[in-house]
Formats: sequence, C-alpha cells, structure tokens
Amino acid sequence: MGANTFGDIFTVTTCGESHGKALACIIDNCPPGVTISVDDIQKDLDRRRPGSTRFGTPRNEADAVQILSGVFEGKTTGTPIGLMIENTSQRSQDYADIMNSFRPGHADYTYLVKYGIRDYRGGGRASARETAMRVAAGAVAKAVLAQLFGVHVSGCVTAIGTISTDKYDPKAALENPFNFADGSPEMLQQLEAYIDQIRQEHDSCGAVVEVRAHGVPVGTGSPIFARLDATIAHAMMSINAVKGVEIGDGFAMAAMRGTQARDLMSHEGFASNHSGGILGGIATGQDIRVRMAFKPTSSILSPGASVDKFGHDIPELVTKGRHDPCVGIRAVPIAEAMLALTILDAIMLDRAQCGSVDRAQLYHIPV
Amino acid sequence: MGANTFGDIFTVTTCGESHGKALACIIDNCPPGVTISVDDIQKDLDRRRPGSTRFGTPRNEADAVQILSGVFEGKTTGTPIGLMIENTSQRSQDYADIMNSFRPGHADYTYLVKYGIRDYRGGGRASARETAMRVAAGAVAKAVLAQLFGVHVSGCVTAIGTISTDKYDPKAALENPFNFADGSPEMLQQLEAYIDQIRQEHDSCGAVVEVRAHGVPVGTGSPIFARLDATIAHAMMSINAVKGVEIGDGFAMAAMRGTQARDLMSHEGFASNHSGGILGGIATGQDIRVRMAFKPTSSILSPGASVDKFGHDIPELVTKGRHDPCVGIRAVPIAEAMLALTILDAIMLDRAQCGSVDRAQLYHIPV
Amino acid sequence: MGANTFGDIFTVTTCGESHGKALACIIDNCPPGVTISVDDIQKDLDRRRPGSTRFGTPRNEADAVQILSGVFEGKTTGTPIGLMIENTSQRSQDYADIMNSFRPGHADYTYLVKYGIRDYRGGGRASARETAMRVAAGAVAKAVLAQLFGVHVSGCVTAIGTISTDKYDPKAALENPFNFADGSPEMLQQLEAYIDQIRQEHDSCGAVVEVRAHGVPVGTGSPIFARLDATIAHAMMSINAVKGVEIGDGFAMAAMRGTQARDLMSHEGFASNHSGGILGGIATGQDIRVRMAFKPTSSILSPGASVDKFGHDIPELVTKGRHDPCVGIRAVPIAEAMLALTILDAIMLDRAQCGSVDRAQLYHIPV
Amino acid sequence: MGANTFGDIFTVTTCGESHGKALACIIDNCPPGVTISVDDIQKDLDRRRPGSTRFGTPRNEADAVQILSGVFEGKTTGTPIGLMIENTSQRSQDYADIMNSFRPGHADYTYLVKYGIRDYRGGGRASARETAMRVAAGAVAKAVLAQLFGVHVSGCVTAIGTISTDKYDPKAALENPFNFADGSPEMLQQLEAYIDQIRQEHDSCGAVVEVRAHGVPVGTGSPIFARLDATIAHAMMSINAVKGVEIGDGFAMAAMRGTQARDLMSHEGFASNHSGGILGGIATGQDIRVRMAFKPTSSILSPGASVDKFGHDIPELVTKGRHDPCVGIRAVPIAEAMLALTILDAIMLDRAQCGSVDRAQLYHIPV
Repeated sequence: MGANTFGDIFTVTTCGESHGKALACIIDNCPPGVTISVDDIQKDLDRRRPGSTRFGTPRNEADAVQILSGVFEGKTTGTPIGLMIENTSQRSQDYADIMNSFRPGHADYTYLVKYGIRDYRGGGRASARETAMRVAAGAVAKAVLAQLFGVHVSGCVTAIGTISTDKYDPKAALENPFNFADGSPEMLQQLEAYIDQIRQEHDSCGAVVEVRAHGVPVGTGSPIFARLDATIAHAMMSINAVKGVEIGDGFAMAAMRGTQARDLMSHEGFASNHSGGILGGIATGQDIRVRMAFKPTSSILSPGASVDKFGHDIPELVTKGRHDPCVGIRAVPIAEAMLALTILDAIMLDRAQCGSVDRAQLYHIPV
Repeated sequence: MGANTFGDIFTVTTCGESHGKALACIIDNCPPGVTISVDDIQKDLDRRRPGSTRFGTPRNEADAVQILSGVFEGKTTGTPIGLMIENTSQRSQDYADIMNSFRPGHADYTYLVKYGIRDYRGGGRASARETAMRVAAGAVAKAVLAQLFGVHVSGCVTAIGTISTDKYDPKAALENPFNFADGSPEMLQQLEAYIDQIRQEHDSCGAVVEVRAHGVPVGTGSPIFARLDATIAHAMMSINAVKGVEIGDGFAMAAMRGTQARDLMSHEGFASNHSGGILGGIATGQDIRVRMAFKPTSSILSPGASVDKFGHDIPELVTKGRHDPCVGIRAVPIAEAMLALTILDAIMLDRAQCGSVDRAQLYHIPV
Repeated sequence: MGANTFGDIFTVTTCGESHGKALACIIDNCPPGVTISVDDIQKDLDRRRPGSTRFGTPRNEADAVQILSGVFEGKTTGTPIGLMIENTSQRSQDYADIMNSFRPGHADYTYLVKYGIRDYRGGGRASARETAMRVAAGAVAKAVLAQLFGVHVSGCVTAIGTISTDKYDPKAALENPFNFADGSPEMLQQLEAYIDQIRQEHDSCGAVVEVRAHGVPVGTGSPIFARLDATIAHAMMSINAVKGVEIGDGFAMAAMRGTQARDLMSHEGFASNHSGGILGGIATGQDIRVRMAFKPTSSILSPGASVDKFGHDIPELVTKGRHDPCVGIRAVPIAEAMLALTILDAIMLDRAQCGSVDRAQLYHIPV
Repeated sequence: MGANTFGDIFTVTTCGESHGKALACIIDNCPPGVTISVDDIQKDLDRRRPGSTRFGTPRNEADAVQILSGVFEGKTTGTPIGLMIENTSQRSQDYADIMNSFRPGHADYTYLVKYGIRDYRGGGRASARETAMRVAAGAVAKAVLAQLFGVHVSGCVTAIGTISTDKYDPKAALENPFNFADGSPEMLQQLEAYIDQIRQEHDSCGAVVEVRAHGVPVGTGSPIFARLDATIAHAMMSINAVKGVEIGDGFAMAAMRGTQARDLMSHEGFASNHSGGILGGIATGQDIRVRMAFKPTSSILSPGASVDKFGHDIPELVTKGRHDPCVGIRAVPIAEAMLALTILDAIMLDRAQCGSVDRAQLYHIPV
C-alpha cells in the first residue's frame, strides 16, 4: 500500500509539500449520500491553521480547500473525493541557507539519505503542513460518522510542557487559544506566561493531547493486527512530533494491580473505563480514550550543533522561519481527524464482515 | 487487508484458537536463500512458552512448530512459508462455566456482540496463545534481518508492577526468570517476593517491556502514514494487553524543552538519541528504542462483578484456569518479533522504492 | 499485499508445494455464523482431485482437508479459518532428473532466476496442486454466498481442444468425466476418442471453461480499478495455464456494432446479456458470464528441446510423471472457486461502502 | 484498498468526474531521482485526447496536466506525485435529458442502484474521461521504467470492427489517425470508409488493441495471485469497454496441442513466444504480449429501448453528445499506461523480495 495512504476501506491518500504548488488528497470508498460542504471542511482546517493566535506561528495561511470531485449537489456520490489546498504564503527564501545542512530534530538528514534528493523548502513533505489534508479528510469522515453512525469525536490539549490538567473539556478548549482542557482564567494566565517565557528564551515545549470518540458501536474493530487500539496507535504515531500513544489508562496500568485495572460489569453498565473503551481490539461501546505525547518543536531560534551533507560541522545552526513554540496546541484537530478516519474505517470493515449478525437480538451492556 | 495479516510486503497471516486444532501462519514474500530451521524458530517459541518457570503459568505447552512449506533443503525458497503448532495441552473443561458470562477485562463481551458467536474455550482467538505464531514468524524475520541486512533486535522487561529499572540488558534478561533488564541478586529477590505476594493475593500486575533494533539502515521507513514509528506503534499495540507505546523518550518529551529534546549532530555522530532512532518516520541509523506498557493480567482468582449474556448480574465471577500473574514477563519475544516484522517490512519497501539510490555516495552521520 | 493472498476483505492466503509437507490456507474476515463442514469443502476438492477418471492423471491424491481454526460447533466464528491438506502421494523420484533442467512451457526457468533456488519436485509451488487450496477456500465462499446472499456459482467445460459446444449445462457437466457442457452420448464418445488419441500421441490439448454466477445483487462491484470484471479477470488469469479471459460476449464484441452489442432495457427486464452481467464494473443483477482459455498441458511425454541451468542444450527433454492430457477438464471447480471468492469480496466491499443506501426504495430492472 | 487505487507498491489513486471541477491522481512510492516533466506527461495525454482527428469525437479537451507535488527541480523526490487536469470543455446541458433514464450499455443504472445517487453529467465517474489520469500516471511509470530498468512499452490497434491485421507496428500506428498496426494506404483507405459508414449509420464498432513490453527482466512477477499475467489482465479489464484479455496466443491456445504450444528452448534462446513472455506468472525476458477486446461505443445516435428510474419504458432513447464511433482507437495510450503501471509495480515487488539474489551468477536464456 502506498506510504501516503491511510485506511483499508475508507482510504485517504495525500500529497503535497510545504512550498510546492498544492496539497491534495483523495478519499476513496466513501459512503454515498452524506451531506458535505466546503464550509464543513474549512471549519476544521481553520482550527489547525497557523496565524490565528499569537501563541502559534505568525504565518497566515489561508488553507482554502476546494472539492475537486466526488460530491454532487451537496452530497457524496460514492466516487472518490478529491480535495485540494493551493499553497499561497510561502517564503522559500527562509530556507535557502539550510539547503545543505541538517536541522537537529528534523528529518532533513533521513530524507536526504533515503531519497538522495529532497525538497528542502520548509521541510518539504516532512512539514507539518502535510497534516492539513488529514484534517480535511477527517472532516469528511466526521460527517459520515455523525450522519450514518452517530459517532462524535472530540479533543483537547491536556498538558503543555510542565503544565497539565486532569480535566477533559473539549468545549472549553475551543474557546481558548491553547485548545486547553482547562479554560479557567488562572490556567490560561499560567499558560500564557509559560509560553511567553519559552518564546523569549528561543525555546519550545512539548504537549499532551487527548482525543475521544463517543457513540462507537460495540463490535467496532477487529482482533489481532487490525485491533482498534493498534490502528489508533498507528494513526496517532503517524502525526508529526508524536512520540507516545496510550489507550485508556495507558502506561499507568503497568503499575496497577489486576483488581484495580479491570472494568467490572453489571446489568447497569461498566463500573469504570480503564480500558479506554476497547477490549480485545474491539469497542465496548464506552468512550474511546486516547492520549498522545508531542515532542517540543524542533525548529527553534536557539542555535544547535549540526553537520551538513558534506560532513562539515555547523556548531551553531539556527532554524529561521516562523514556528510554533508548541506544536501540540494546533494538533487537536489533526488528532481528531486521525481518530475519525480510524474509527470509520473500522466501522466499515465491521459492516462488511458482520453486517448479517443480528445484534439487536444480543444483550448489550448499557453505556 | 485481512485483520489477521501484518505487513505490506513481508506479510504474516495467522489463525488459530487457544483450544482449537492448531495455530498456523503463512509468511509471504519472504526473501529467498535465507537459512532457517525448525530449531531457529523453536528457540524463540520456547522463550514465550508457558510453564518454564514458577513465575509464569504452570501450563506446559510443547508449542512444537512444524514448517509446512516454503523451505527447501534448509533455505527459504521465496514461496510462502507455512508454520503450524498443534494444540496439545488444552483443558477446555476449565471454561465451561464461563460459556455464557463475560470475564471482566476480557474480550468475551466484545467478541460475542461483534460476531454473535464465540469459541469461549480459553478465550478462543482472544487468548494470548495466538502470539505464538507471531513469535514463530518473528524468528523467520530475525533470520532474514540478520543474514541479509545486519539488523538485530533485543528486548527485556524494565518494569514489573511498581518495580522498575533504568537498565537495558537483554543478555541479563535471558538469564533470569523475569526477563528483567536488571539481573542483580538484589533485584531478583525483590521481584520474586513481589510476584509471590501478588500471587498469594490472587492478584496480578502490569509491566513495561523495552525492545530495540540495532543496525537498522538509515533510510528505512517512509514518511506520513507508513512512518516507521507509526507502524511500530501499530505492531506493539496489537499485542494482547498492551495499552501504551513510546518511541525514544516518549511521553517524557511532552515536558521537555526543544533545546533538551533535539539530538545534536556533528561529524562524529549524534550527541544523543532522544528520538529513538527515527526522524520524520525514517530510521537515523541509531538504535531504535521502543517501550510498551502491559496491563495486569485480567484472569485472576479474585472474584469480580460481571454480567452474563442474558443480562443477569454475576457479583462474584472467578476466572479459573492457569494464568500468569504478569503477562508482560513472557511478552519479550513477542515484542521482539513484532519489531523484527515491522523493520523487515520497512526495509523491503525501502528497497523496492529506493533501491536505485546510490547511498554509498551520500554522507552518513556515524552511529 | 502478499503475492499469495487474494481478496481485499474476504482474503485467502495459501501456501504449499506439490511435494512438501502440506498445503494450507487461511481465510480472513469471513462472516460469522455460516454453517460449514469438512464435507462441504471435501465435495469440491473431490471434483478437482486427480485420479477420479481415466481421462485425467492416474495420480490418486486423497486431498483430505482439515479445518484448523475459525469454525466452532459447525459455524464460522469470524476468526480466521485455517485449512490444511497433508501431502501423501508424492513420487519425488520422478523429478530428480529435471533438478537442473527447464521443462518447456513450465516455470522452472523463471522460478530459478527469480529466487536463485527452487523446489523442483513436482513443480514445487508452480504445480497446479496449489489450486486445491483455492477450491477449499472457494467452498467456504460458496457457503457464505449461498447462505447470506443467495448467490450461486456454476461452471462447465465448453471446449476441449478443437471440440466445442454452445451449450452451458453445469448439471450435465457434473455427470460426465469431461465436465463438459454437452453430455450427450455422441459428444462424450467424440471427446473420449479425441482424448484417447491425444494421449496415444503423447500430446495434450487446451480447453475453454465457462463459469457463471447467479443471483449477484445489482450494485455489487466498484468502478475503476476494482471493477468486478477486472477482479474476475485477475482471478481467472491467476489460475495455472489460463491464457485468456472474457466477460459476456468478450472478444466477439470487437467485431460487433453498437446496435448489436448493447443490452436494451424495458420495465420487463434486459433484452439480452451481451455484457455478461456487468456494466461500468458493477453487477446488473443478470447472470455473470465468464469464459477462460486453458493452454494445453505442458507436461507431455513427447520430447522437446530445452536447456539446463548450466546452459547446456537438452535436445530431447521428456517430462515424466503422471499428467492430465487436458488440464482444463479438472479446472471447473477451480474457476468456480475463484469466481465465488471474487464476488463475495465485492459484495462485502459494497456492504461496507453502501450499506446505508436504501436500495429497496430504488427502481430495479427485473432479471 | 481503495477501489480507485491501482498497484501494491507503485500505487496510483485517481479521482474526478467527466463534468466536475478536475481530474486528479496521486502516485505513491515512486522511485526518487527520475527525470520527469509536464511535457513528458502531456505527450501521452495528447495521444488520448479527443478532437485530434475527424475519426474520433469532435470534443476538444485541452487536458492540460499540472504537477502539484513530488517533483523538485525536474526530478521525482520519492514523495507522492500529485497530478491534476482541470475540466474545461463540458457541455453539461447535453445530459440534462438523461438525468433520470438509463442509457443502454452504460453504467447509469448500476451506478444509481449502487450509490442511490449519481452525477449523470457526461457519465460522471463512469466516463472514459477518467482514463486521462491513468495515461498521466502511466507516463510517469514509463519514465521510471525507461530510466531505471530499461523497459519500454508500446501498442497499436490490431482490429477495428471486422477489419483486422496480423501486423504489430507501433511506429506506424503513431502516424495514422486509427493508431492502426498496419499503416499502408490501402488499409487506411479501407478503415476510413468503414468508420465513415458506421458514423453515417449512427452506429459504432469494437476494436482489438495489442500492447507489448520490451526489456522486462526475467524474474519480474510473482506466482499465484500476483502472477504478472493476472495483474495485467486486471489492469486491462479495468479499462472502460474492455471485455476480453489474452496473454500470448491467448484463446487460440485452447485449440492447440501441447507440442505446438510450448516454447522450446536452447542455449540460443526461446524458439517461440506462444506464452507471451510469462511462465508461471513470472517474466521470461521475452516481450510481453497482451491483446484486449473493446466493445463498440455504447453512446450512439441510433435510438434504443430503455427504461427510466421510475420504471417507465423509453422505447427510443437517443444518446446525444459528441462520441467516438470506436473507443478502441484512442485506447492505445491507456492500455500502454496500464501495462507500464503493472510491470513497474511487479519490478518493485521483485526488488523488495529478491533484491539479494545474485542473478548475475545465474544462467540466463538469451532473448
């Protein structure tokens, strides 16, 4: 399968470099009859778009999406959906001086050795700009999930650098510039001071993002290699800068006892959701809970030692350009998109295989 | 793609239930000319096999593997390799009384709703016994990696419940019954007491396993959805009981600064390996480092509240059978196998796409 | 995807050489709850089995299939189905003298150059014996098609060498040793004389096989690369010795006029079925009609010029062993199996994508 | 896999309707470092483009291709290549009166039942206009094949309706308006009269197209389901209007004797090429020969009986619009493209699996 395709049935294939002509994607096997508009897609793109707040990069990319095909009179037709965003706000000259050098923490070196050639402008294909098409495709997946299957995904940032919260409040997150799960004035003030300091120090910080899916039908997902948690982990770890993924209580479960970790059941439902809504790779019907760690932005103004493609040391390489101090902040719609794509694909595979199972006849634990 | 197939080029397809006739797998697109014997495979299977120490389950399964096809005169022929392990030590009667009930923390409920039918004996397909075929296939992948590409994988347990270590010593791990990275007498004594206590309390505990790959050629892996870290996360999270996966410094990077997290470079090599050997989804040539969290064994003798498939509460369900107090201990060869399969698949895709790139001409950062 | 896997959703992966330990296959994503038994599978295997009539090879292979997994109490469980046939009637010594030489019309040469090694015994993986697992998997697909979707496949031989018929009578075919569509005494006498003569002349002949599917729901299949006719062509051309595939009127349509070739419609149905039941890659609801050409058996006793792997000419190579004078005769269940696999996969993809389309509301042309 | 994706490694995913905004495709896993320009692609597109001769449709579509990504400074970078053709010459009003009716021989009916909705303008996705993106992607594949592997594909029309030739002369075909293999003045005069008559009679005719690949390395292709002949058959049958595919001598082999059909060998090479350059699904190194039958254009001005989506009969439906009397004529670059895509994908899989086989050490039969 193409390295730029995600999904087995509801597939998304993307292309595009940071400073090329356009980003594009093709969504295949989309269910027909689903209402979708440019506005639906643009709404999520605008959440990812740089330039919206002073806590992100000052680049202002319009990211205006066009629907090339697959939608007729406002509805999906079942034929492949082409989406395109033309690149407009490129300042390629920022990158001329890194043509031959490898920025630390970036993929410059690995791309060059892999391919023997690279489009160095703005990171080329390795730029997080690529994720715009994931968000666009995810918006289509969200529409299908909502209209046909009653599934909704949400997300928020739960940690920025050393500041974290136990809250999960996607509505609050929509209303603060950090997409943070705790939107209290005290917290926002604290975050603002923290980010300002990091920026002044020409540094950056990591983040934790949590996403959830509500309404996923029990039975979604398949055991073994197509486990829903495995494909979710794949989806999340494929996002730039993600270095860890957890389902449910995740790493904390390593230190738990079995008596603590198992979710007890009764005719009234599950007593807890340590498992994050997945057992044996299959959804339980509870909320699916996923957390992921973003590493700090690698593009920082603080100089760092590097080397160029001729083997010459560069003791103080500086990455110019306009960059986010914390890439995790704008990542919420990306993570939501990947969760939506993963779950929709699993629902469609489940329908393919088990569409003749009469689940209405089977006992369901309330959720 | 089949839910029981892993890999895009070097593919492994498995089948088999815990208490069925046999487990089997078919390995496809295996490079020809690689030396492989039943003994090579059996060696890894024996590391996973229950019954070897008193700190695991007392089940004694022979797990004797047979090669059905694809190997001729001791070498792979390029045709698909069939492997089979016949089931011999089943005590199905242990499970008759859970035919209709859902064990907490198990996939009984989700399987039943998904398929409308389930082989309840020993967990059926959801049993960790399934992983035997992963280990068998992984042994073949390890042979290919070692003989054709100079890649070696290793692994050890780095945490059992609340006891953890910073060490990583796979050789030591091979010589202690916990596969633990720290094999000092003090540590082993501590672990022994800990496990004994857990067992006496009819409880279980989680674990952390770390695996590494050494010698992975720079350039292995593909950007975007086939990122090497993404496929590794997929591989690891597809193992029973795994709830979290990290690459390199993983979740700890969320709280780091960019100046700490980036791996500086010079003509002498990388100054650190926070990234875990992967940048932009592509191997840097450094060791690939992966950690994963196992939840505590769900099958424990302590009674727990549940419900049956008729909706009747079962306030004190007990899971009989012979179970490991900590499933992570025997998981090391499984995690190694999944890492080997993932990396080999990526190497083969890289060769397919970039086999004409003259990498010898390109500058390589020493590792 | 593995070269030995067929299908995107209902996948079949096979392994096994002619003279190895066993043939096996794994069927994945099979719908659960379908009744299947060893006998159901064996019935089709026995139709393919050599040795049943004097018009085939005198090899008598038991071809006894075992179900390794995925079936519980007589029903499919949705987990992968492992099937195995142990090899019992091998006479490997027949092949020792072709260890280094390339039989004309065989894959000996291409296998050796491709893999650098080959299991030369009985053609190894290139033997038509491999198709036994297709028949076994096809029997499972037929059961799913019949029980869940009301689809039935059939087939017969319509030409043997220079003798052909316009008839299509699968029932008659079941009752004559040539699987021939015309079972009249005159025809059978003619065929018997023809085959006897060919055998006496140490020669072989080709054949044409036709297979049909009845009851395929309109809407099955997808446009463009997953067209139902394209996947059927793939399926049929993947059978050993097939050199041509036609859908509907096939090659004859090249010489037709548009006014002849189009299938007119009215509220009473289609006036004809030149298209073979597929328009735009999607089933019309009419019978799907497929014809394929088998080349003559390459293994014949008449000596032929060849060369060995050292480049030495062998002016008079003779292929010993027990061979069919016309491989097409036993190919009917193989072609049926491939048609069943293809259609089931397409039905499952259609259900995945279009399961929410309310087709009962749409006008259907009667068939 | 997406229904609009072709290939396992070198994948092409297309989208776009006849009268939508644009056609697009994404090529993935393309080898890096290959020289490619808009002109290279446009050259093949112009061969497919309607309006070039009076023997095709008078529509004049510019079909101007744009490269969106994946090419940097004139070379492929290994990242996905986006291609786009904006639609410019649509006359949608031609189609308003077939909004609710089903044109005979077209996919109108099957699309509507499958999806419950269809873009009826110009056939929407079912229009042969879709094949433009195949040609564009094929041009990239041809460049890779030529530059990295020394493989060249060619093609010509060998039959138009009842007029056929035994010749195969792709150069001559490039210089006559019928892409015909025999470009003699007598033949062209005959064809001109034939097509003129068909057009006057408001009718259409079928065609046979032959394509060949020269220089395909022995060893290309895989046995069983990924047989090179099987994937070629898939590729060709996926082209609109193709109803039959043959490899080598194809259907004629059904009536041959084994002594005639086998290609004898000596140290001087193969004595013949009945097999069409493939044995056991693997290339022999000889030319690969493929023939395919195109049905007559279904869109003709002669009225035909049909029915509409309400079940009302339409005794005399006329398909307006500007149509080719023989779709096969413009199909040569499409068939070449599909052959190029198929062979490149197989070469890349072969390199992935068998890249470590030292073929230079093995004996090769001269070709």
